[in-house]
Amino acid sequence: MSYENLVEDLPYIKEAINNKNEGYLKNIFDDLYSEDFLPLIYDLDSTQISYVLSLLDDETVARIISNLDEDTRHQIFKFFNKHQIAKFINELYSDDAADILNTFPVKDREEIISLIEDKEMAMHINELLRYDNDCAGGLMAKELVKANVSWNIKQTIEEIRLQTENVEKLYTIYVVNDDDMLVGRVSLKKIILSSDNTKIEEIYEPDILSVETHTDAQEVADIMQKYDLETIPVVNMYGKLVGRITVDDVMDVVKQQAVVDMHAMSGISTHVEEDDTVWKLCKARLPWLIIGIFGGLLGAFFMGFFEQNLAIVPAMAFFIPLITATGGNVGVQSSSLIVQSLAQTDTYDTNHAKRLVKALLVAIVNGLVICGLVFVFVILFQPIKLALVVSLALFFVILLASFMGTITPLILDRFGINPALASGPFITTANDLLGIAVYFSIAGLLYNLS
Amino acid sequence: MSYENLVEDLPYIKEAINNKNEGYLKNIFDDLYSEDFLPLIYDLDSTQISYVLSLLDDETVARIISNLDEDTRHQIFKFFNKHQIAKFINELYSDDAADILNTFPVKDREEIISLIEDKEMAMHINELLRYDNDCAGGLMAKELVKANVSWNIKQTIEEIRLQTENVEKLYTIYVVNDDDMLVGRVSLKKIILSSDNTKIEEIYEPDILSVETHTDAQEVADIMQKYDLETIPVVNMYGKLVGRITVDDVMDVVKQQAVVDMHAMSGISTHVEEDDTVWKLCKARLPWLIIGIFGGLLGAFFMGFFEQNLAIVPAMAFFIPLITATGGNVGVQSSSLIVQSLAQTDTYDTNHAKRLVKALLVAIVNGLVICGLVFVFVILFQPIKLALVVSLALFFVILLASFMGTITPLILDRFGINPALASGPFITTANDLLGIAVYFSIAGLLYNLS
Repeated sequence: MSYENLVEDLPYIKEAINNKNEGYLKNIFDDLYSEDFLPLIYDLDSTQISYVLSLLDDETVARIISNLDEDTRHQIFKFFNKHQIAKFINELYSDDAADILNTFPVKDREEIISLIEDKEMAMHINELLRYDNDCAGGLMAKELVKANVSWNIKQTIEEIRLQTENVEKLYTIYVVNDDDMLVGRVSLKKIILSSDNTKIEEIYEPDILSVETHTDAQEVADIMQKYDLETIPVVNMYGKLVGRITVDDVMDVVKQQAVVDMHAMSGISTHVEEDDTVWKLCKARLPWLIIGIFGGLLGAFFMGFFEQNLAIVPAMAFFIPLITATGGNVGVQSSSLIVQSLAQTDTYDTNHAKRLVKALLVAIVNGLVICGLVFVFVILFQPIKLALVVSLALFFVILLASFMGTITPLILDRFGINPALASGPFITTANDLLGIAVYFSIAGLLYNLS
Repeated sequence: MSYENLVEDLPYIKEAINNKNEGYLKNIFDDLYSEDFLPLIYDLDSTQISYVLSLLDDETVARIISNLDEDTRHQIFKFFNKHQIAKFINELYSDDAADILNTFPVKDREEIISLIEDKEMAMHINELLRYDNDCAGGLMAKELVKANVSWNIKQTIEEIRLQTENVEKLYTIYVVNDDDMLVGRVSLKKIILSSDNTKIEEIYEPDILSVETHTDAQEVADIMQKYDLETIPVVNMYGKLVGRITVDDVMDVVKQQAVVDMHAMSGISTHVEEDDTVWKLCKARLPWLIIGIFGGLLGAFFMGFFEQNLAIVPAMAFFIPLITATGGNVGVQSSSLIVQSLAQTDTYDTNHAKRLVKALLVAIVNGLVICGLVFVFVILFQPIKLALVVSLALFFVILLASFMGTITPLILDRFGINPALASGPFITTANDLLGIAVYFSIAGLLYNLS
C-alpha cells in the first residue's frame, strides 16, 4: 500500500477507527512504513490518534513520533506517562532521541532519561545533549560499528554481531587503535571477501575523511556532498572516534538551508510554516513590512522636495512604479546569481573585481536594450523630454541596482551573514529609494536646464 | 591535505607545473581525492591542465573530468583522441558515463561508445542514453549486485566477488527470481551474520521500495528522502530489475530544484551561472525585465486617467512607491510560505479554503498594524485626507496582495507549473498594477466625494 492509496482510503480508515475495527486496521497498518502514517495522524483528533498508536508496536510508534513536527509530538506525548515516553525514546537512534528530548523542559528531560532502561543509550543521549544543533556533534549518532586494527576477520564478524544490534544500516566499519583513535575504515564488502584469518591491518583503508565534533553543520554537509559520502565519522579534539553522521541528517541541513534562503529572500524574519498560528505568522512578517514602510515614507519625504516639479509635470508621477520596479527586479536578479555562485565556491574563483566588471557589462547591455524600448514607447504618448528623463533614469537605475545587487551579498558573506538576505526586502527598499533619487534628480536637472 | 591547504599552496603548485617538477607534484597529488583537483583545474590554462592530467592515472582523470562543468570538460577533451576518451569513460559508473556522452554530437558519441573496451559497459551506456534526464531511468546506474532467491550464502558471496568489481559502494544486495524480477533485498550485514548454507530465501526481506524507469526524478528524490533510503532499485514495466539510484544522484536533483526555485523567484528565465558569458546572462535576464517594463508602462498609461487629480494634489505621487513596494513585499511573503508548504505536502493537509481564510486573517492583522502606523506618520506632514487615502489603500492592497500571493502558487501547482514562479517578477508586476489601481480609485472616490 502506498501513500497515495492511503490518502484515498482515509475515509474508510477513519470509519474503522471510530468503530474500533481492530482486525481491518491491523491488516492495513501491517503494510505501512512508519513514514506512511503521517498524513493519517495529521488528519485525526487526539483520541483517535491515541487509539491508532495503541494498535502499533513500540518501535513503530517511536518512529512515527520522531517524524512528527514538535507541536503535534507534544500533543501526543500528553497521552503517555514518562515511563512510556522513555520506552519509545529507547527505540530510536541516539541522535533522534537527543533531538526529541531537547524539546522538553530540563526537569522532564532528566526524568525521562533516568527512566530509559538501556543505560548505555541514556549515557549516549546525555553526551549528545551537550552539543549545539548546528555542529557535527549535534548531528551525529553514537551508534556505529568499530573494529580494532589488530583484530582478524573472524573476531571482527563476532563484534559486528554484538555491535549491530542497534545499527540497522551498516556500510563501513571504522578502524580504531588501542586508544580508540580513528585510524581508517574497512568496507563490509572487503570483510565478506576476505578469509577468516586476515587481519584488519592488512585490508583496512587508512585514507579516511572525518570531521570534529565542533565542525559547522553546513561544512559537514558540504564535505559529504563534495565527496559523495553516505556516512562520515566524527572525532573529538584528541582524534578519538565519538560518532557518525549519515547522509539523511545532512540532507535535512541542505533542505533547511534552502528554506532559510527562501525566507531571507522573501522577507520572513523567523522560521515559520504555513500551519503555525496566525499571530506567529504575523510576527514573522511584520518586521520586514515595517522596514519597507519606513523606506516608502522616506521616499515620500524625499519626493516632497520636488512637489513643484510634479505640479508642473504631473505625468512624471506615472513612471515612478516603472523606475522602482525595474531597480528592484535588476537588484534581485544580480544578488541571486551571486548567492548561487557563493554556494558553490569550489568551482569558481573568487575574484571580486572581475565579478563587478562583468556585472557592469551585463547591466550596460540590459540597460541599453530597456532604455531604447522604453524611450520608443513613452514618446508615443508623452513629450520627448519626459521620455528622455525616464529612459536616462532607467539606465542609471539599472547600473546602480546591478552594482548594489552584486556587492551587497559579497559584503554580507564576508561578515558571515546569509547573503540571500541581499535579495530580500531590505535591498529592494534601498533600490526603491535609489531609483526615486536618480529619477527626480535627472528630472530636476533636465527641466531646470531648459 | 585538504582543499583549504591546496588553495593556499596554489602558487607553489603552479610554479612546479611550469617547471615540470614531477616529483614534487606527484607527491602532492597522491594525497588528493579527485574532487580536490577542481579548484586547481579551474585556475590553470589548457597546456598546464594537460600536463597535470598526464601525471595522473586513468581513473583519477576520469573522475576529475566527470566532476567538471560541461564547457571546461569539452575544453579538456580536445587534448585527447577518441580512444583515450573511451578509456576514461570506461572508468566511470555507467550513469556518469551516459551523462557525459549525452553532451557529445551523436556521431562522436557513437564512435566513442564503439571504442569502449568493456562491451557490457558499452551496452549499459546505450541503454541509459535512451532515458530522459528527468526520470528514474536517466538517474540510475546499471552497476548493482543481485542474487537469485534460490542461492545460498556461499554462492552469493562468490557472486559478490564477481559482480562487485565495478561496485565500489555496496550496501544492499537485490534479490531476484529466475525471471530477473525484483522480489526483495538482503543486507550485507545479514549475509555476514549467516552461515554458508543458509538460503537467501530464508533471510531476504521481501518488503522493498522500488521505482519504475519512467518515474519522475523529483518523485524519486521525494521517496528516497521520505524513507531515508541510500539506494533505490529501478524496475522496468514488467518488474524486471534494471538499475539502481544512489542518494548522491538524488541530492543533485534536490539542489538543482533549489536553484530552479531561486531563479524562478528572482526572474532569471534560463539556467545560468555567474561564470557564463555576458551575452548568455543578458539573454536570461532580459525577458522578465521586459515583462516588468511593460507592466510599468501599463501602470503609467492607467495613471494617465488621473492626471487631473495629480495636478491638484501632487503629493499623491509621493506615496506610489510605498503602495507598490508593500504590495510586492506582502505578495512575495505569502507565496513563499505556500511554496514552502507545497514542497512538504505529506505533513500538511491541503484544504485550500482553510488556507485562504488563514491568509486573510494574517493580512487583516498586518494590514491594521501597518495602516495605523502609516496614518500616524503621514498626518505629521500631509493633510488628513491624503493620510486617509494612503492608509485605506494600503489596507486593501495588503489584503489583495495576500490573496494573490496565496492563490497564484496554488493555481500554478495545479497546472504542473513550478509554484516558485509566483514569487517572481510576474506576480510582483501584477501586484504593482493592482496597487496603483486601488490607490488611485480610492483617491478618486474620496477627493470627488468632497
